Amino acid sequence: MVRAMSTRYDALGVDTQGVEGSLKRLGVIIESTFDFNAASPILPLGYFANVIRITDDVGIAISTDGVGTKILVAQQMDRYDTVGIDCVAMNANDIVCVGARPISMVDYIAVQRLDDRQLEELATGLREGARQAGINIPGGEIAQVREMLHGSRDGLAFDLVGTCIGTVHPDRLIVGEDVRPGDVVIGLASSGVHSNGFTLARHALFERGGLRMGDPVAGVGRPVGEALLEPTRMYVRAVVEMMDRGLGLRSLAHITGDGLMNLARVRAAAGFVIDEPLAIPPIFTAIAELGGIAPAEMYTVFNMGTGFCVVATAGDADDIVAIAQRHGHTAAVIGYTVADQRRRVWLPRAGLVGEGKTFRANDERAPAPPSAES
Amino acid sequence: MVRAMSTRYDALGVDTQGVEGSLKRLGVIIESTFDFNAASPILPLGYFANVIRITDDVGIAISTDGVGTKILVAQQMDRYDTVGIDCVAMNANDIVCVGARPISMVDYIAVQRLDDRQLEELATGLREGARQAGINIPGGEIAQVREMLHGSRDGLAFDLVGTCIGTVHPDRLIVGEDVRPGDVVIGLASSGVHSNGFTLARHALFERGGLRMGDPVAGVGRPVGEALLEPTRMYVRAVVEMMDRGLGLRSLAHITGDGLMNLARVRAAAGFVIDEPLAIPPIFTAIAELGGIAPAEMYTVFNMGTGFCVVATAGDADDIVAIAQRHGHTAAVIGYTVADQRRRVWLPRAGLVGEGKTFRANDERAPAPPSAES
Repeated sequence: MVRAMSTRYDALGVDTQGVEGSLKRLGVIIESTFDFNAASPILPLGYFANVIRITDDVGIAISTDGVGTKILVAQQMDRYDTVGIDCVAMNANDIVCVGARPISMVDYIAVQRLDDRQLEELATGLREGARQAGINIPGGEIAQVREMLHGSRDGLAFDLVGTCIGTVHPDRLIVGEDVRPGDVVIGLASSGVHSNGFTLARHALFERGGLRMGDPVAGVGRPVGEALLEPTRMYVRAVVEMMDRGLGLRSLAHITGDGLMNLARVRAAAGFVIDEPLAIPPIFTAIAELGGIAPAEMYTVFNMGTGFCVVATAGDADDIVAIAQRHGHTAAVIGYTVADQRRRVWLPRAGLVGEGKTFRANDERAPAPPSAES
Repeated sequence: MVRAMSTRYDALGVDTQGVEGSLKRLGVIIESTFDFNAASPILPLGYFANVIRITDDVGIAISTDGVGTKILVAQQMDRYDTVGIDCVAMNANDIVCVGARPISMVDYIAVQRLDDRQLEELATGLREGARQAGINIPGGEIAQVREMLHGSRDGLAFDLVGTCIGTVHPDRLIVGEDVRPGDVVIGLASSGVHSNGFTLARHALFERGGLRMGDPVAGVGRPVGEALLEPTRMYVRAVVEMMDRGLGLRSLAHITGDGLMNLARVRAAAGFVIDEPLAIPPIFTAIAELGGIAPAEMYTVFNMGTGFCVVATAGDADDIVAIAQRHGHTAAVIGYTVADQRRRVWLPRAGLVGEGKTFRANDERAPAPPSAES
């Protein structure tokens, strides 16, 4: 199976394609650093971001992520002004998931050689991402490491990684401890594939499907290369406004690799029924059809139209949707929470249920909303 | 000329091999993000780390760096438990240079595939680095991006990048504003090549010199591959103790790419005369001889034996040397400061003077110490 793997050390405890052993051992080794000083991380490895208690009032959230093999598409399109937005979004969207406000991101750019146009376009994308997220970029590193890189355009291979920090009161993290049955799940639409699953997407569209970058895709309305390069949507300002308004936010989930299974990272013993999902962008239909990919695999790898989820008290759902819409997002209540020790995610319309990291076909009825039960 | 280029956007304003244009434009674009929120970076781009003012009392220092092409040597040696130490050292040694205490580092590991032994060894090195620096590792990212990587051992190509944060009172940064003529420069010995200049070192030793990894090098006493993999020395605990003791620290310089020219990053109009340098480790002699590399180039690319410099008031020199030695470092007063608008660095024994980023041959006498003038 062709699949991009990208993990925040969070496959720990889950047997994902036989990699359990190495990642688990790596996690144990890394977690043994937690008591190397007095500023211990507040969360275990594997949440969207971790938080360091700096003082009684100041916590610093931190998260690092790269753009992955979306970079290969940028090279093939010879266009470098969008992946910087992805780099900021992948990190800043993670930072808000612990209830923090992103403030700064540093970037690491590895290049084969210093190419004027490429660097300027990369910087332009980073600046646009920073603008969208309302963060600054206080520094970065450009490493010229020609022999370490490979790509789809010789001499212009590169990698792009960011590390974002944010602030949060160390006693006011949002990590899903308070999710209760009957809470609502509000979905914010993605712009497409975002920055996950590109190894599978490229395999389906180009290798199996035989498309070229400039070819149009049914329903997409523009060349497939352009559609794939569409930047990851930035949810930061909308979510920060939800926090500032003191709404009943129970958990926040950036939908990246593992798709809607990211909901299941919550601390509470909660399951999620997504009975009214957002529309599936046509690029995913094209990937599934050209690649012959089953729904379980599609939903495990891709966001399938939902880029961010807000789990909240039902009474605040309308306000949350309204804030998201005012920030330009397509948003709606897409489901509800139930009590579930196994933290499953049900997708009734797709006929799937997910547990751990993966979805599988499911004929059984999803649990009804708690309010209908009582 | 073969040379590893690695920059913190700090070649800005300096014409380094014709790359001025692209880096300068990139710097201008990135620096335009500084006012995207209220937590503006305190320093311009290009110092060892930047600092964000979180509250009136809390500043967060942040720096990102990779290990560079030392990674190719690790692959050839098939040994992965040392570069994690380099990764921590490259970042944590930078953080102390602004007067901050390192607290946490996140890492980004890009791999071709998840290899149990490789990941475990990488994690072991990161933990050892964290232990030496007294920091924790609250998270990280493992990206499986086979098609984006190239290396010296197929399937085991990887990249390793860290981002370190530290704390510093925002009004008590050490950035070399107060360097005065007659201050002393204290050098702390490096362990060898550290993590800079590996492209040139490999070219000299293996391509021009014809050595193989297992070959001994004159004066080194062990195989060249092992000598090259020697981890970057961690200066964190020694420097933090110097801070805690309230000694008269004027500026702190991690000696990485650009060698002792890193001294010239200070804010003050100061020059540096290194008249009593630390011993040059034999690996550098081997590189220079086998590669036919002139002294100016050697001192521009390599640390040449001095991995960290503390510029301090003369009266505190003995205490600083004693602290460094108690932490296991070879340390000594290696020079003194003079007034110099051009921020030059004189190396009288090597017959060199440096300005901007590079050293050149110099027959003129270095300025005498100010005390001798008066």
